[in-house]
Amino acid sequence: MVHVVDITDPADPRLDDFRDLNSSDRRPDLPEGKGLVIAEGVLVVQRLVESRFEPLALLGVERRLGELADDLVDVDVPFYRTTADVMAEAVGFHLNRGVLAAARRPAPLDLADVVADARTVAILEGVNDHENLGSMFRNAAGLGADAVLFGGACADPLYRRSVRVSMGHVLRVPFATVPDWPRGLSVLRDNGFQLVSLTPNPTAVPLAEAMTGEKVALLLGAEGPGLTEHAMRATDVRARIPMAPGTDSLNVATAAAMAFYERVRTG
Amino acid sequence: MVHVVDITDPADPRLDDFRDLNSSDRRPDLPEGKGLVIAEGVLVVQRLVESRFEPLALLGVERRLGELADDLVDVDVPFYRTTADVMAEAVGFHLNRGVLAAARRPAPLDLADVVADARTVAILEGVNDHENLGSMFRNAAGLGADAVLFGGACADPLYRRSVRVSMGHVLRVPFATVPDWPRGLSVLRDNGFQLVSLTPNPTAVPLAEAMTGEKVALLLGAEGPGLTEHAMRATDVRARIPMAPGTDSLNVATAAAMAFYERVRTG
Repeated sequence: MVHVVDITDPADPRLDDFRDLNSSDRRPDLPEGKGLVIAEGVLVVQRLVESRFEPLALLGVERRLGELADDLVDVDVPFYRTTADVMAEAVGFHLNRGVLAAARRPAPLDLADVVADARTVAILEGVNDHENLGSMFRNAAGLGADAVLFGGACADPLYRRSVRVSMGHVLRVPFATVPDWPRGLSVLRDNGFQLVSLTPNPTAVPLAEAMTGEKVALLLGAEGPGLTEHAMRATDVRARIPMAPGTDSLNVATAAAMAFYERVRTG
Repeated sequence: MVHVVDITDPADPRLDDFRDLNSSDRRPDLPEGKGLVIAEGVLVVQRLVESRFEPLALLGVERRLGELADDLVDVDVPFYRTTADVMAEAVGFHLNRGVLAAARRPAPLDLADVVADARTVAILEGVNDHENLGSMFRNAAGLGADAVLFGGACADPLYRRSVRVSMGHVLRVPFATVPDWPRGLSVLRDNGFQLVSLTPNPTAVPLAEAMTGEKVALLLGAEGPGLTEHAMRATDVRARIPMAPGTDSLNVATAAAMAFYERVRTG
């Protein structure tokens, strides 16, 4: 069980891992990012506790400690119990979720392990919006995709905003980096994956017809630029979501959801 | 063509329609909302100009005026030309999109007119998140849904954030209010629509099997509470998106996108 420590002074150094979260958000920003992982709110803290991430400490109000009691039975770290006001002063803003957990980043997962038993994975290139990354993991979890892989130039999926938007699923859905992008895609090919590029290009094959593999890896680029030609050339087929004329591409996480759905529907 | 008016004083009363946008966002917040509609950025201003919304005035920097020149040929209102600094001071924050248009709200569209030639519509209940509303319109536009209808307790789709997240599609995709909720759904029934509730309930019919009508109206509730039982009882079938165990429901705009996609795929 967590050991409850009452805190009355917002300057207490034991709260340093939770201090000024908005400014610690300005840390360097790479998929291999540094810094602690912060979970906000009861649901995300529950997911953190069940995940491969190990909490260092929690900070929250009495009510949230009560709500989390069953989840924290096997968690042997401090729970800094305080008031909403002290919490707001330490964190730097008012948090109406009332509880935070801080965790160290575990060692990155090995790409070969992540893809070994997977059937559907998303591979991202140039996706540098934390909200989109979070939505991607939420949609992957909801629609049963097995992993998210990072090709070139993506942002840190463990950034606080991304963790929050993912509803904690970034802590559950495995992710790994594809080295030597895009040549490293050979690992997927060697594991029997069909490599499918998603593109708004109207000459591409409709999504439902394009995904013919037993195992499918979906490549998605950032909104706007999309996938690089370099990456698309390394794939087996270019697929498009049928779009209405005169509209833009869908949000990248929504496009992925459409493909995940198609895999579930035909799976 | 717009008539260009140079402005050097951020306090100039001609900028009042654009003043302190963050605080004017705190206005009453209903689908029938008041207040001007604000379009931000070149793309959204272009969509405004092509829409049923009539601009009152534009405010922007020289560069954006140049980019919009072709779009503004038939627009007979002032373009207040100024610097990024004056703009930031009047608006209350720095806008890196460099151009704004303000428009009056046109008279609401008539529900019967909106559904007359429609094949796929979304009907929302309790969706009070402006970002979700914006995403809903973006997905409707991208995947060819014909209209968005408002049942009970939704927020204002013309709120600034909603307009921005929709990428201006809220100005293009027709919307109307269903009166006397949910009894007013009879208008859809009389027009030959199959009424389909979306629910995460695992006993519901899978989405792909549930949508059998030539015309389909999809009912969607807010994340969390979902549709009221009252609303679901007024529909023909309850449909679910196949979800992975132990996950939450999808974001409401993502769930709608899945259903729109299914309509395109089978249409």
